Amino acid sequence: MAERRLITGFSNPAVKYLRSLRDKKHRKAAGKFLAEGLRLLTDARESGRLPEMLVMATGRDPHPLLDALESEVLATGGEVLEMAPDLLAKVTGKDNPQAVAGVFAEFNTSLAAIDRNSAKIWLVAQALRDPGNLGTILRTGDAVGAGGLILIDDCADPFSVEAVRASMGAVFTQRIALAKWQEFLPWLRSGPGQLIAASLREAVDYRGAPYAGPCFIMVGNESRGLPEDYELACDLRVTMPMKGRADSLNAAIAGAVLAYEVLAALE
Amino acid sequence: MAERRLITGFSNPAVKYLRSLRDKKHRKAAGKFLAEGLRLLTDARESGRLPEMLVMATGRDPHPLLDALESEVLATGGEVLEMAPDLLAKVTGKDNPQAVAGVFAEFNTSLAAIDRNSAKIWLVAQALRDPGNLGTILRTGDAVGAGGLILIDDCADPFSVEAVRASMGAVFTQRIALAKWQEFLPWLRSGPGQLIAASLREAVDYRGAPYAGPCFIMVGNESRGLPEDYELACDLRVTMPMKGRADSLNAAIAGAVLAYEVLAALE
Repeated sequence: MAERRLITGFSNPAVKYLRSLRDKKHRKAAGKFLAEGLRLLTDARESGRLPEMLVMATGRDPHPLLDALESEVLATGGEVLEMAPDLLAKVTGKDNPQAVAGVFAEFNTSLAAIDRNSAKIWLVAQALRDPGNLGTILRTGDAVGAGGLILIDDCADPFSVEAVRASMGAVFTQRIALAKWQEFLPWLRSGPGQLIAASLREAVDYRGAPYAGPCFIMVGNESRGLPEDYELACDLRVTMPMKGRADSLNAAIAGAVLAYEVLAALE
Repeated sequence: MAERRLITGFSNPAVKYLRSLRDKKHRKAAGKFLAEGLRLLTDARESGRLPEMLVMATGRDPHPLLDALESEVLATGGEVLEMAPDLLAKVTGKDNPQAVAGVFAEFNTSLAAIDRNSAKIWLVAQALRDPGNLGTILRTGDAVGAGGLILIDDCADPFSVEAVRASMGAVFTQRIALAKWQEFLPWLRSGPGQLIAASLREAVDYRGAPYAGPCFIMVGNESRGLPEDYELACDLRVTMPMKGRADSLNAAIAGAVLAYEVLAALE
């Protein structure tokens, strides 16, 4: 049976490899991503995802969930590394790293892998730039029982350490697809699906709007919002009260308020 | 009449002063904070807040709103500085700084300055750690027409550059108060006010709950949530659907979904 391997030097190739996964280009080339923390790794395991490589800090507190994780990773042919906390800090880029991190293979992110009838709600984000927002939207999707998140055009990477962290495990429970608008729209129209956006253009009140699942709730870029033609392609444009000086909400907030309204309407 | 002053060196005391405002300790000592970008500064101006010091990048595009801002700052005895974009980048800590930033005097953040009857909704955050979350909650407060945000116990600084930025100008439109729980609760009970939190303890469905303004909607720390005794002190504990594996929402998201529900119920 395979065993733990102790990594002692900063120049060890394993450390370099792990560090490289913080960079999008290297992540894409390797087709892998990093997730950190026992909670996140346990969420992954309970969602049927095991890391290919498990990295543990020396001197960590023992934990039965971590033991279980280690056994399963070794049993499925994965690697288990140990390194000093300061070395693990270099890997995760955090001053106070969690005692454990894992390397996962990226998932299939094609639209074709989405079964739209498996959920009543899907979230769609367009040109979303902030990885924290992206992770928060995944987490919201998990909470409302959405099927997943479809990322349109050039979005932040859902497999970045920041997005994975902000998703609080939802990166493992939500389907994720990446697509250009030109691919997404024909795919959407090839089956049932109501495309919905918050909008000021000929919009109806978001409360009591005629929602019909599967609902695809779309939010736009943090500064520019959705392009006009994307809004016009929606089946339903809804408006939410804006009582203040600003005429907008944070994208993740707007999506969540809408998603909870749709959830209540469809139940 | 006062004139613009050109700042050329990194060692100029004005640059050191401005940079120091990125640090909480120095911000508190000076009683000042930084806001950047013409949009934010225009929001401030329209809310009746002028910077005491205006800092503009040399070579910026001219803009009538910036001209108006400059005139008013000079007319009210404020200072106007110009510096090269790379120097301004050192001040704001951003690689691509906005062409303008301003220094504002911190507002009165005492509970006593809050007129609870001026709004039907107030947001309350306890031990909120993330400045981005804090700014997003301010922005949401603006959108739902809340009176302001009350920060309980040890929260992120609402006057940090990150929080101000994420608030999208709401830091200038929302009242902000800082208080310990031991001060807040007696203050709340000294007048009308329904304290509400999302909770799993003897909670009622958040839809159709008996909301009665002024509603104080409280969210807890990002990882630990609210302390049990804080939850138990609430007049109304409400529960929101959690369909997924995780049993929680991001604090800013939970607060926003609740706030929109309260807004609809009170209208």
